[in-house]
Amino acid sequence: MKLAILGGGQLGRMIGLAAVPLGVECRFLDPSPAAGAAAVGELHIGELDDVAAIAQLVDGCDAITYEWEGVPAKALEPFVDTHFVAPSLRALAASQDRVTEKTLAKALGLGTAPWRAVGTLNELREALADLGAPAILKTRSGGYDGKGQVRVDDLDDVATAWSVLQAGGPLILEGFVDFAREVSVIGCRARDGEMVVWPVAENRHDQGILRESRVPADSDTQARADALVRGLLNELDYVGVLCVELFDVGGDLLVTEFAPRVHNSGHWTIEGALTSQFENHVRAVLGLPLGVCDLAAGPTAMLNCVGRLPDAHDALRIPGAHLHDYGKSPRSGRKVGHLTLVAPDEETLEERLVAARAVIRDDG
Amino acid sequence: MKLAILGGGQLGRMIGLAAVPLGVECRFLDPSPAAGAAAVGELHIGELDDVAAIAQLVDGCDAITYEWEGVPAKALEPFVDTHFVAPSLRALAASQDRVTEKTLAKALGLGTAPWRAVGTLNELREALADLGAPAILKTRSGGYDGKGQVRVDDLDDVATAWSVLQAGGPLILEGFVDFAREVSVIGCRARDGEMVVWPVAENRHDQGILRESRVPADSDTQARADALVRGLLNELDYVGVLCVELFDVGGDLLVTEFAPRVHNSGHWTIEGALTSQFENHVRAVLGLPLGVCDLAAGPTAMLNCVGRLPDAHDALRIPGAHLHDYGKSPRSGRKVGHLTLVAPDEETLEERLVAARAVIRDDG
Repeated sequence: MKLAILGGGQLGRMIGLAAVPLGVECRFLDPSPAAGAAAVGELHIGELDDVAAIAQLVDGCDAITYEWEGVPAKALEPFVDTHFVAPSLRALAASQDRVTEKTLAKALGLGTAPWRAVGTLNELREALADLGAPAILKTRSGGYDGKGQVRVDDLDDVATAWSVLQAGGPLILEGFVDFAREVSVIGCRARDGEMVVWPVAENRHDQGILRESRVPADSDTQARADALVRGLLNELDYVGVLCVELFDVGGDLLVTEFAPRVHNSGHWTIEGALTSQFENHVRAVLGLPLGVCDLAAGPTAMLNCVGRLPDAHDALRIPGAHLHDYGKSPRSGRKVGHLTLVAPDEETLEERLVAARAVIRDDG
Repeated sequence: MKLAILGGGQLGRMIGLAAVPLGVECRFLDPSPAAGAAAVGELHIGELDDVAAIAQLVDGCDAITYEWEGVPAKALEPFVDTHFVAPSLRALAASQDRVTEKTLAKALGLGTAPWRAVGTLNELREALADLGAPAILKTRSGGYDGKGQVRVDDLDDVATAWSVLQAGGPLILEGFVDFAREVSVIGCRARDGEMVVWPVAENRHDQGILRESRVPADSDTQARADALVRGLLNELDYVGVLCVELFDVGGDLLVTEFAPRVHNSGHWTIEGALTSQFENHVRAVLGLPLGVCDLAAGPTAMLNCVGRLPDAHDALRIPGAHLHDYGKSPRSGRKVGHLTLVAPDEETLEERLVAARAVIRDDG
């Protein structure tokens, strides 16, 4: 079978690594000739909104998927009648607009931070008065890794925040939530409606970039998150992997955003789960049965390598450590790899985390 | 880092899959343009004894390894001064000749089946009288998957057996061993002498071809096999993965042969162990620390797909199953893939094995 994937970064690369053993050939479209997914499939060089390039890419493929929710739904529309596209363009579009995303969450009875769509500077002032300061002004589309958002502490910040972000399109103001922790839940739905959900990860961000994910969470959080992601998967008649990022506020889970793709907070599943998010995404999109998602060996953690990689000797000397090098050139603030730690128990994981943090050389 | 690999079949393909996350680029040499390892690295087409082709392959590579013990040591000799070649040519040569192999085993105090090197038809008759019938006549070099061997039941068979095999070079007669079971132990040694050993697999062959491997074995067998493989690794000053196949004769382990490479009876380690044989082989050869080899989730089994693959839907519907398609065209008696089963306990593994055997469609 052949799978067309829009985007050839590290997510594409890890999808490709999961696809090869299944006998699936991956073809990637990416604007960069240095795209890391080239190591595990055929790389087509082109923009992700170039319909002619996509037509070439998908020719002879059994299904189309993407590793980035920034792919314009319009660019994929010409192919939905001839190819199975998953996740669906409806899910893609919903994830591309924070307002649609939050409206969908509300319709499903899911909590979010309080929010207001803001179209003018005056609306922003009114929204801030409504929600109270501090609040976060965000572009409705296109933000990632902390980009496309500005914190607004009082009315004096409003004009500056507005001028910084308004070029990025329509905006949304989100009320500040005093969360206890950030967690994420990843689920996968097959073509026949079968669903699986991985253990919930607790995530730590810094400067808007995910730094660490750790599993498992407590069983109460797991049960709530499991029901939440299943509801969303069914509502969207979804096929493939979906990640929902959540604030845990005193046990209540508020949806912050969802990503219609494999997700950084699920990289631990490669070694830490019985089936990885990458393998189940490939299985789902191609109409195969899904694999079980239980923890494999014990509690597991993932540390991102931002800006540059740790020394491989230092990293791999830690028992239970696996290094993932994305094949990208080092650059401040860029995710260039990750380290996974598997341990037999929480105490050992904690020891290994201390050792791993000492070898991580984040730059940005 | 860049790794040159002689041979681009399924073993090379699985080495490549383990190498990509480590940021290691693999280059494969294989006579076939359809070699499956091309999915995960650069494929050079050429014979494995073609020194000029090897020179091109290894140019700019940090180390050289191989996926097949049939590689002529002579073809690699020109490169040992300029490149790190692992496993060493001494280990390669020892594994290529059943007489050298058994002599080495004896020197280390390890048991083998009784054997005689035979150079003439008369020597074969004498050897059979010595060892008793039945016995197995084998080529000293080049046999695999049951090829290059003939059973000799009495003196009347001698002339036929001789005429069938003598074209394959020098021969050896091995006495019949009434073994309780066949097991194999896989170890890995790093450049600095660090060693790891995976759980011992119990193997079932049919028509000379491995059909199933299952782990773990009992702790007594594990302890004996562990000591045995460590002794061999140290004696050979070995770097990389070594597999030793053994007969278990009432608790005594007799060496049948060893393979200086990743081995079919270790394919279960991809999902079943905390670090796979493929990843540790890459780590060892490139001078990195080794990963721990404990069972990951629970008892694990591997079933070979011989001749043709099972239907992917049927196979992946079995809980805990992972399918490995080698990207080879179906052919009677050819290993084209394998299925791994991971289970929380022996009873569940047994149930899954029953289900898996029902979907395997071996042809040969």
